[in-house]
Amino acid sequence: MPNGEFVVTPWQVDGVIDYDKLIKRFGTQRIDPAMRKKIVEAAGQDHFMLRRGVFFSHRDMGGIIDLHKKSKPFFVYTGRGPSGATHIGHLVPWIFAKWLQDRFGVNVYFQLTDDEKFFSKKGLSLDDTMGLARENALDFVALGFDPAKTKIVIDTQDIARLYPIAAQIAKRINFSNTKAVFGFGGETNIGMIFYTAIQSAMCYIEDAPVLIPLGVDQDPHFRLTRDVAPLLKKPKPALIHNMMMPPLHGGGGKMSSSESNSAIFTTDSPGDVKRKINKHAFSGGRPDIDEHRRLGGNPDIDIAYQYLRMFFEPDDAKLEEIRADYASGRMLTGELKAILIERVNEYLAAHQEARERARDHLDEYGLGP
Amino acid sequence: MPNGEFVVTPWQVDGVIDYDKLIKRFGTQRIDPAMRKKIVEAAGQDHFMLRRGVFFSHRDMGGIIDLHKKSKPFFVYTGRGPSGATHIGHLVPWIFAKWLQDRFGVNVYFQLTDDEKFFSKKGLSLDDTMGLARENALDFVALGFDPAKTKIVIDTQDIARLYPIAAQIAKRINFSNTKAVFGFGGETNIGMIFYTAIQSAMCYIEDAPVLIPLGVDQDPHFRLTRDVAPLLKKPKPALIHNMMMPPLHGGGGKMSSSESNSAIFTTDSPGDVKRKINKHAFSGGRPDIDEHRRLGGNPDIDIAYQYLRMFFEPDDAKLEEIRADYASGRMLTGELKAILIERVNEYLAAHQEARERARDHLDEYGLGP
Repeated sequence: MPNGEFVVTPWQVDGVIDYDKLIKRFGTQRIDPAMRKKIVEAAGQDHFMLRRGVFFSHRDMGGIIDLHKKSKPFFVYTGRGPSGATHIGHLVPWIFAKWLQDRFGVNVYFQLTDDEKFFSKKGLSLDDTMGLARENALDFVALGFDPAKTKIVIDTQDIARLYPIAAQIAKRINFSNTKAVFGFGGETNIGMIFYTAIQSAMCYIEDAPVLIPLGVDQDPHFRLTRDVAPLLKKPKPALIHNMMMPPLHGGGGKMSSSESNSAIFTTDSPGDVKRKINKHAFSGGRPDIDEHRRLGGNPDIDIAYQYLRMFFEPDDAKLEEIRADYASGRMLTGELKAILIERVNEYLAAHQEARERARDHLDEYGLGP
Repeated sequence: MPNGEFVVTPWQVDGVIDYDKLIKRFGTQRIDPAMRKKIVEAAGQDHFMLRRGVFFSHRDMGGIIDLHKKSKPFFVYTGRGPSGATHIGHLVPWIFAKWLQDRFGVNVYFQLTDDEKFFSKKGLSLDDTMGLARENALDFVALGFDPAKTKIVIDTQDIARLYPIAAQIAKRINFSNTKAVFGFGGETNIGMIFYTAIQSAMCYIEDAPVLIPLGVDQDPHFRLTRDVAPLLKKPKPALIHNMMMPPLHGGGGKMSSSESNSAIFTTDSPGDVKRKINKHAFSGGRPDIDEHRRLGGNPDIDIAYQYLRMFFEPDDAKLEEIRADYASGRMLTGELKAILIERVNEYLAAHQEARERARDHLDEYGLGP
């Protein structure tokens, strides 16, 4: 990818993303201080991912908050394409969905798009993606959603409910629309072409407006949904977008399931975590210790620092201390990495325990045996 | 449509079809005397639609007969796109499917493609096509299929069973394939583009080879299925094609549900039938009686005669008598039409009675309430 260029679609994230440019390209709204205040006031609480701009962009978020103020219902929907193991980048919108459920008391739907990943990945069978869907569901359940207000949907298993809604949407989207939004061409398989209607269908699974926390790469699907909504006399889905978790190597693109050294998986062992971070995490430090002590490191490009900021260190005071120490040169790259390794392994120890417990509770979220 | 040209696709039949040319264009096999003999011998009985070339073309019919001779199972599948009332053109492949069930003891699946007609018809809602599907099912059941060996499938209602099979097929068909086979373009909606996979899925609803009696306009769907079958390590569907029932006015195209004076519907009253045939059936007679008596009529282009030949007069001796009388000028157009009107009304009286009885028996064929 030439310098300064980047691609963001549901199936490809390449290059270093310029999020200001992406907001313009996609036509979304930045979450400005006024909007942040509005969300925080309605929620009665702040969230560090909101405060730190991990959630940076939205569509119609204001409308959802206004609705809530009038005590009118909305629901939350997020999901995952089960192409491999879950990594911490996947957890970002789910964690936010959990927070929305806690703060607003809303129903949450979690969609596992086994059909999509089957259509888009040459090497995966439908049995593969169905199996991965159940594994990914464990990570979702591990986050502690209220079973009474949460439903997990697997596309092929819940297709009876999704297809009639998807059909309403599919009739109003033509091939040229998908070409414009996803870059589809003659070689695109017809499962992929239709699939966007299945993802859109989730927006109308309840008879209330939906709010979707999601990685910004998924926005194109719902741009189509929003174009179609008036034709169906339905509300447009509201969206709140998070930035993509950068890969460990710090280059362009996103953390990726198919590149195991780019990602920290929820099932990684403490040893995996230590090795990956020490070996692969791109450092903002100087080439030698003397220079680092004198000039300091650059936390803005340091992946260990960024993971702490985006995910593993919710405490602002602690994060600021780490930043200041690293930027001044008091803290070396190895020390910064050691902090991240400790935090990740603490997080994963608790997550992995919850994840194993979840195996016996999938049915409470609507999954069959 | 310029003279001599014609179009045959699942959604458009225009112009006067040259069936010899169509066989070459589609790459199917003519049912020659040897193949007819093979079918008749295996069935232990002839069928007038086979003998008279209404079923004129096939793909791999020989393989199905060979299978049967080795006592290996096959099943039969046919269907209907529920865009309106059933006309006698629709009944042709169903009648043949009934004969196949009687002669070979096979299971029959009947697919009602409510999704397809919703996708392809601007003015129809999914509720409309679902309602029409149930009405069309009555005509199918009225033909007397064995409920123990017959299942009616409505796409939106049976999608849980169809979608995982359709997905396997959809992954192996790209947009260019559908463009080549159906003429799809940028303006085609994504429901239509995907739909062919749903129709193909029926070919694999049982774990045995399928034989599909069908109007030749439906062949393109299964050409795609046959291309995909080796990739799925599945048998190619075998097909036996009937000619399109010509419209009453005798011009190009086919009998059409949306053109009520082109078709005889299964629910037409005796008065409707009389009026339509007398007023609209294209005549092969001479402009005045004297000339007709002297030169005779032309049964080959006379719609009343063709309907008798294709559908309403199974008795060869009686048909030949009518033909000879008409061709010699002994029989006038009005007299020929009177014979057809009588036969049609006899047929419809019995059919309509069976059709009403069918209302209480849809559940025996797997349809919910």
